[in-house]
Amino acid sequence: MELENVSASKVAGGWHKQYCFDSKTLNSKTRFAIFLPPNATEEKPVPVMYWLSGLTCNDENFMQKFGAFQVASRLGIAIVAPDTSPRGANVPDDVDGSYDFGLGAGFYVNATQPPWNTHYNMYDFVVDELPNMIERHFPVSSKRAISGHSMGGHGALMIALRNPDRYSSATAFSPITNPIKVPWGQKAFSNYLGDNRDNWEQYDTCKLMRNFSGSPVPMLVEQGDKDDFLHTQLKPDNLLTAVEYEKYPLEFRMQHGYDHSYFFIATFIEDHIRFHAKNWMTS
Amino acid sequence: MELENVSASKVAGGWHKQYCFDSKTLNSKTRFAIFLPPNATEEKPVPVMYWLSGLTCNDENFMQKFGAFQVASRLGIAIVAPDTSPRGANVPDDVDGSYDFGLGAGFYVNATQPPWNTHYNMYDFVVDELPNMIERHFPVSSKRAISGHSMGGHGALMIALRNPDRYSSATAFSPITNPIKVPWGQKAFSNYLGDNRDNWEQYDTCKLMRNFSGSPVPMLVEQGDKDDFLHTQLKPDNLLTAVEYEKYPLEFRMQHGYDHSYFFIATFIEDHIRFHAKNWMTS
Repeated sequence: MELENVSASKVAGGWHKQYCFDSKTLNSKTRFAIFLPPNATEEKPVPVMYWLSGLTCNDENFMQKFGAFQVASRLGIAIVAPDTSPRGANVPDDVDGSYDFGLGAGFYVNATQPPWNTHYNMYDFVVDELPNMIERHFPVSSKRAISGHSMGGHGALMIALRNPDRYSSATAFSPITNPIKVPWGQKAFSNYLGDNRDNWEQYDTCKLMRNFSGSPVPMLVEQGDKDDFLHTQLKPDNLLTAVEYEKYPLEFRMQHGYDHSYFFIATFIEDHIRFHAKNWMTS
Repeated sequence: MELENVSASKVAGGWHKQYCFDSKTLNSKTRFAIFLPPNATEEKPVPVMYWLSGLTCNDENFMQKFGAFQVASRLGIAIVAPDTSPRGANVPDDVDGSYDFGLGAGFYVNATQPPWNTHYNMYDFVVDELPNMIERHFPVSSKRAISGHSMGGHGALMIALRNPDRYSSATAFSPITNPIKVPWGQKAFSNYLGDNRDNWEQYDTCKLMRNFSGSPVPMLVEQGDKDDFLHTQLKPDNLLTAVEYEKYPLEFRMQHGYDHSYFFIATFIEDHIRFHAKNWMTS
């Protein structure tokens, strides 16, 4: 069986389910979670929001904490949350098991360096293999949006900029906007991609934004001004400079008093879901 | 310092905070979480919903997963979530560390049997010490409601029936309604309270309901019909028989397809918060 069902719970009239499958891209078994709203049927497939989580997370954190199943249910939107890295006994981890590299920290890139390149191909997994699997097995349309938090916010913006034909809209909470310039990104990229920094730029939102041409994907970025990582790892000013330069349609909202936690996500996620819904309606 | 602040995150315009203090009742340090809506001030104190969690939980599970901060924020309601047992190196646990007795499983009773009676006084803690602490330190009124899940649903209904003057309303998700008749309750009560079953009845919702006299506390009980513990541990039919006999104002809702998880709570918690708000307005 291609997909192995792991759990199923009714929620907000729809279903939250977890599945495992053997990923060819990740060369390992992987688990994802999906929320299907009650109106999703083969005859009336629904659009999908892909959610990319941050460091240390798996498919569960967002689904347990985002707190807006009712909104997704009413708007008729599926949500898919993959893991943040390959997993399994054979998958290498950082030597010291650190939180910011290796397991739980795939950074949504395709690794080129051994031993990482055998499994750490999260870019291809998120862009191709996962949506193909989702669209083959569930009553969803090809209308896709992508959102994420922190490392996953980096993933969402970067992936949308590289694949504007595949996503109607993209949003991010507290994204790492300029990974080639900050410690988290530099550690991950040097290990996954090697020391030649030219190879890093294809995964850097600020760089991609500055070089963007084509039909832009509307974006919404939410940032808390009490985020402990604001100036060291996230650097939204770098993104805003690139957005200004490019005149890219990105709405940036600095929220007073909010930190880097899921409490921040839970506060504004409804706006992000509605942002996607609005863009689907007009696309 | 009486209260030690452990964390603070802005959420839905208000604040989620965790505090520790040395509990005289529990003879140990304890942690609780509080949500304060943005309109809570010394001049305009807000009502409080106390939330009692189920087996294995602490003060975090509900706050991270209930998903209705926006509703509590808009309605101007504080929420307080205590731990489910005393904690600490000196607090005894079940010999085999089982999930259904000892740490994480205080069952909201005052233990009379050694070694439990030194620390396991969750009834007095929830009814007296905690609200006294809350009302002394935060901008909350003396309008209280109480809700809970599973073991905490037992706690909420039982405590409201024994203290109808202290709570405006009570609600429960998937409560253990008749603990003296089911394995979870029998294991906990025999250990905490001893073998004389007469001493158990003061903590049994069905028994208290049948003997109730006075001014009743309006109640709402939510139960999923796909709950794995429905017939073995929860036994809502026993509660409904007692409610019918007593003509007690309890609304019972059997929800089709829902299980015992937080996904069930997240689906209907808004109704419970509004149930409390309605009763506060009319009380």
